[in-house]
Amino acid sequence: MEIDIRKRKVGLNFLEDGTAEIWLWAPFATNVSVLITESELSLKMQKESLGYWYLKSNEIAENAEYCFALENKEAEQQTTDSQPLLRSDPASVYQKNGVSGNSTAYNLKSFNWTDLGWQGVRTEDLIIYELHTGTFTPTGDFNSITEKIDYLLELGITAIEIMPVAQFPGNRNWGYDGVYPFAVQDSYGGPEALQQLINTCHEKGLAVILDVVYNHFGPEGNYLKDFGPYFTAKYNTPWGDAINFDDANCDAVREYFIENCLMWFRDFHIDALRLDAVHAIKDLSTTHILAEIKQYVNQLSAHTKREYLLLVELDLNDNTYINPLADKGYGMDAQWIDEFHHALRVTTGEAKNGYYADFNGIEHLAKSYRDAYVYDGQYSPHRQKKFGIKAERNQGNQFIVFSQNHDHVGNRMLGERTSTLVSFEMLKLLAAAVLCSPYIPLIFMGEEYGEANPFQFFISHTDEDIIESVRKGRRSEFAAFHHSDETPDPQSEDTFNRSKLNWEALNENQHKTLFAYYKALIALRKSNPVLNKLDRTGVLAEALKDQNCLILTRSNQNGKVYCLMNFSKETQGFPGRHVANSKVIFNSASVEWGGSDAEQPAINDTIN
Amino acid sequence: MEIDIRKRKVGLNFLEDGTAEIWLWAPFATNVSVLITESELSLKMQKESLGYWYLKSNEIAENAEYCFALENKEAEQQTTDSQPLLRSDPASVYQKNGVSGNSTAYNLKSFNWTDLGWQGVRTEDLIIYELHTGTFTPTGDFNSITEKIDYLLELGITAIEIMPVAQFPGNRNWGYDGVYPFAVQDSYGGPEALQQLINTCHEKGLAVILDVVYNHFGPEGNYLKDFGPYFTAKYNTPWGDAINFDDANCDAVREYFIENCLMWFRDFHIDALRLDAVHAIKDLSTTHILAEIKQYVNQLSAHTKREYLLLVELDLNDNTYINPLADKGYGMDAQWIDEFHHALRVTTGEAKNGYYADFNGIEHLAKSYRDAYVYDGQYSPHRQKKFGIKAERNQGNQFIVFSQNHDHVGNRMLGERTSTLVSFEMLKLLAAAVLCSPYIPLIFMGEEYGEANPFQFFISHTDEDIIESVRKGRRSEFAAFHHSDETPDPQSEDTFNRSKLNWEALNENQHKTLFAYYKALIALRKSNPVLNKLDRTGVLAEALKDQNCLILTRSNQNGKVYCLMNFSKETQGFPGRHVANSKVIFNSASVEWGGSDAEQPAINDTIN
Repeated sequence: MEIDIRKRKVGLNFLEDGTAEIWLWAPFATNVSVLITESELSLKMQKESLGYWYLKSNEIAENAEYCFALENKEAEQQTTDSQPLLRSDPASVYQKNGVSGNSTAYNLKSFNWTDLGWQGVRTEDLIIYELHTGTFTPTGDFNSITEKIDYLLELGITAIEIMPVAQFPGNRNWGYDGVYPFAVQDSYGGPEALQQLINTCHEKGLAVILDVVYNHFGPEGNYLKDFGPYFTAKYNTPWGDAINFDDANCDAVREYFIENCLMWFRDFHIDALRLDAVHAIKDLSTTHILAEIKQYVNQLSAHTKREYLLLVELDLNDNTYINPLADKGYGMDAQWIDEFHHALRVTTGEAKNGYYADFNGIEHLAKSYRDAYVYDGQYSPHRQKKFGIKAERNQGNQFIVFSQNHDHVGNRMLGERTSTLVSFEMLKLLAAAVLCSPYIPLIFMGEEYGEANPFQFFISHTDEDIIESVRKGRRSEFAAFHHSDETPDPQSEDTFNRSKLNWEALNENQHKTLFAYYKALIALRKSNPVLNKLDRTGVLAEALKDQNCLILTRSNQNGKVYCLMNFSKETQGFPGRHVANSKVIFNSASVEWGGSDAEQPAINDTIN
Repeated sequence: MEIDIRKRKVGLNFLEDGTAEIWLWAPFATNVSVLITESELSLKMQKESLGYWYLKSNEIAENAEYCFALENKEAEQQTTDSQPLLRSDPASVYQKNGVSGNSTAYNLKSFNWTDLGWQGVRTEDLIIYELHTGTFTPTGDFNSITEKIDYLLELGITAIEIMPVAQFPGNRNWGYDGVYPFAVQDSYGGPEALQQLINTCHEKGLAVILDVVYNHFGPEGNYLKDFGPYFTAKYNTPWGDAINFDDANCDAVREYFIENCLMWFRDFHIDALRLDAVHAIKDLSTTHILAEIKQYVNQLSAHTKREYLLLVELDLNDNTYINPLADKGYGMDAQWIDEFHHALRVTTGEAKNGYYADFNGIEHLAKSYRDAYVYDGQYSPHRQKKFGIKAERNQGNQFIVFSQNHDHVGNRMLGERTSTLVSFEMLKLLAAAVLCSPYIPLIFMGEEYGEANPFQFFISHTDEDIIESVRKGRRSEFAAFHHSDETPDPQSEDTFNRSKLNWEALNENQHKTLFAYYKALIALRKSNPVLNKLDRTGVLAEALKDQNCLILTRSNQNGKVYCLMNFSKETQGFPGRHVANSKVIFNSASVEWGGSDAEQPAINDTIN
């Protein structure tokens, strides 16, 4: 099988004339058939080179259910000739009966796209709104997200980022337990509903980012090992064997993920992928899989004349990932910088436990404004080694920052959102710290109105052992600080329901004010000719340690903006910071935003 | 501890005034003392930052024996206060009683160097002679190598490459089971004898390359785990856990190996290190350990005004390793290309088993002459994946080639040298194929006179379990092709003795001729203004598949040389290859070299 950027080849696909074409990688199989469930038809596949099997057939109707019958002589799971292994398609696009059901021959090309005027989004213009489909709305599906688009446009964000939708077990999951990377979660509405959502977003002017997981598979419903060596024992990861990106037989595994990227962009019109935890992708190949993905995405872009972005969650201060291919980088468009978050949260008083231990607060926050990476070569006590490299030449639109996201909320034992942890004044300051930064801002659903419901860790596995092991894992994670009884049960439906947004809150006073505040701040960021440029050359950041205050200065040929941030509990002056000819353009502590400082604003009292 | 390129800091070192200074990394220890064996003196070390312990003392005499007493509260091996762990120095430079004995406080600076006029060697001029100290001479030590220097100079090679000398168990070992990377094998003569050998080599005009192993430690006498996390479970290697180059606590491990490199260059005047199997060094740090080593070696070079080379054995066709630091490479000076060897040997009729399976013979050989890497992106059946990248911009002096080396001889069950596997005519052709290549040639001790003794795999462990496991490993390696009884016993002294060079052979006719032939060929390579330039721009290689012949053309502004190689058993013409104005400068099949073709040379019969 050769990748063709113009059409999906892996798995089952329909040609223009309605013929079904199937490519399956099963290098150790001795016989492979496609079984059409309803008609009980069995179609023998033909062995091709490099472990692939192929079938072209006009006997498979759209939306027919199918699976593969594998006869393996050498694979881990032995079969006898009379009892072939029955397995659904690893590249299935629709599992309407869940991870254990058959695959559905859904035709990705049947959707009637009407977003042809959509021009995509530039990284400079990204204001990202991260959402979890299951808890964003009461019904928890794609259709109901559509109803919120006008609200999101009013808020001013430019892109939604949908947490992973790859088919996972049950109907409650953050999305990181997906086992069918190509299949769109049935309980969310499946592939067609996702296409519909994206089409509507584009028509209304909203970009769509999709979170995809290429570093591990979930623990339940993962039968990839029956097909071939998708995993390698070369590397140990928190999830066991690593996905095989560089060991024997890796080519087809690499193709599988490249095809996956291409599918989202080409067949779902996704604008950007958010690649989960790419530091956990272990690949010592001559060309890193991310660089290879970038090469293919560039080809697709040239073909469709649309720009596609690759954004990576990366727990490494290593700009190799975001440097251009021509400069021996992997060519990713932007990366997460959790360090900004950590420094920011310690500045607001977060206890210095776990990954927060590395951060001293205001000085590190200032460093992150200046240098993006806080650790750029120094010794990190938390990591117990020297960490990072300088990223001087990387622009602000290569970094994504936030004051909270699903991880930092949900990884707390009780999943408390920031709104329940800090004061209202601090909430506003946090928002401004992110939205005035020279980086791409990301907000987490509900943050914009101070949602008080938690975002807890939830699953809906069916395997009792896995459920118990996840429960134990959660309990032991917090054992040092909490009594284990307090840990919410991840498997409980209550935990999931508790984590849903409470849209009613928006009608309440302070929530309404906060929403208006976010709206105003986003509008300011978009309209201000200094704030809306992400060139880092005009960025200065000074920490006033004793006052726990920070002065962020941003400037370009269009002017200069001072962002005076007071993280202390007291009113602070900024002595000697009297800036002639400047005027206050935004004051988070003003009465308008529920503050008390109509005449003498707390954070910029010396500004004329 | 901070690395100081001017002096060794790790382990025990003497200052100018005779004071001993000791740095030890033992991050989990609660108390560390130095014990001076003879005087029964116990000196408490002082805890420093980042897990280091320090002591400065004038109570330690040169050549005193010492060890460390460790009290660990958290380490793997628990101790009670009454019974501290006694361990010799991981950075010991001399273990005169073997791997289990105490360390000796040898003063590396006490040697009186007289090689100050020595200018080092350029990669362009390298003609490498690989030797194994234990089997190169009857006595098997450094002193006796000295006696062979004149012979080696007569042969014409420019550098000896000494197989690893880091202290290993017993006195028979290839050297890859070393457990004290800083200690020079006692049975070879220890550090002073090595310094003496290098000094003499330099005085006589011979460079010295040392083989060092940074990818694993031997199985016996390795107590590093008692000191700290030298290993990480992140990666699985053929030797178990990988050396910790990028996990928590890796900084001190990295420093340990950087210090090791610097020691050989600075304190032993080594000209080049041959880094064993660097593909097995697993390091996903922002700066690869090899690149960091290069940075330090560059600093040392600036300080001492001598050039030091870093040559790597690399089973990857990845020129990142040899590209300059400025171009995001690791800056290694040259790499092994085993593929040249494999293609060459298949061309001479080697069975296509194991790693030979990837090579078709003459065409791949021609490709290796042209492109260095045979696999530069294609699918490799042996590796079961696409492999390699193009190395177009790398020069010939970045690649090291050979027709045999210790590995390819010794990894045969019976350790047969090429001299016993192919005809005399073929031996000469193999020599020419290597020495006329646009790459750095390497020959394996004895090859130059057709040594007939094998070079077998031998060890001299003391642990019975390890011995039995090595025996089993060897037997199972060859189980498919041989009866297990045939496998020489690696632990047997006979196996070692059988592998020694038989210098008497040099007095025999054909051996004498071959030696003269090598000498003439090396002289030709050195004096010919086309052959002695390693710019690859003037290299052409054409495979004549049906005749199993190859025409290598090398040219530059000084002229053009055709190397006509006939690997078939028949006399071959090179029809249409009549080259006007050219003359035969060397004919391997001439009567002078024991051939039969005085008038009508087999390999270049159409040349005027």
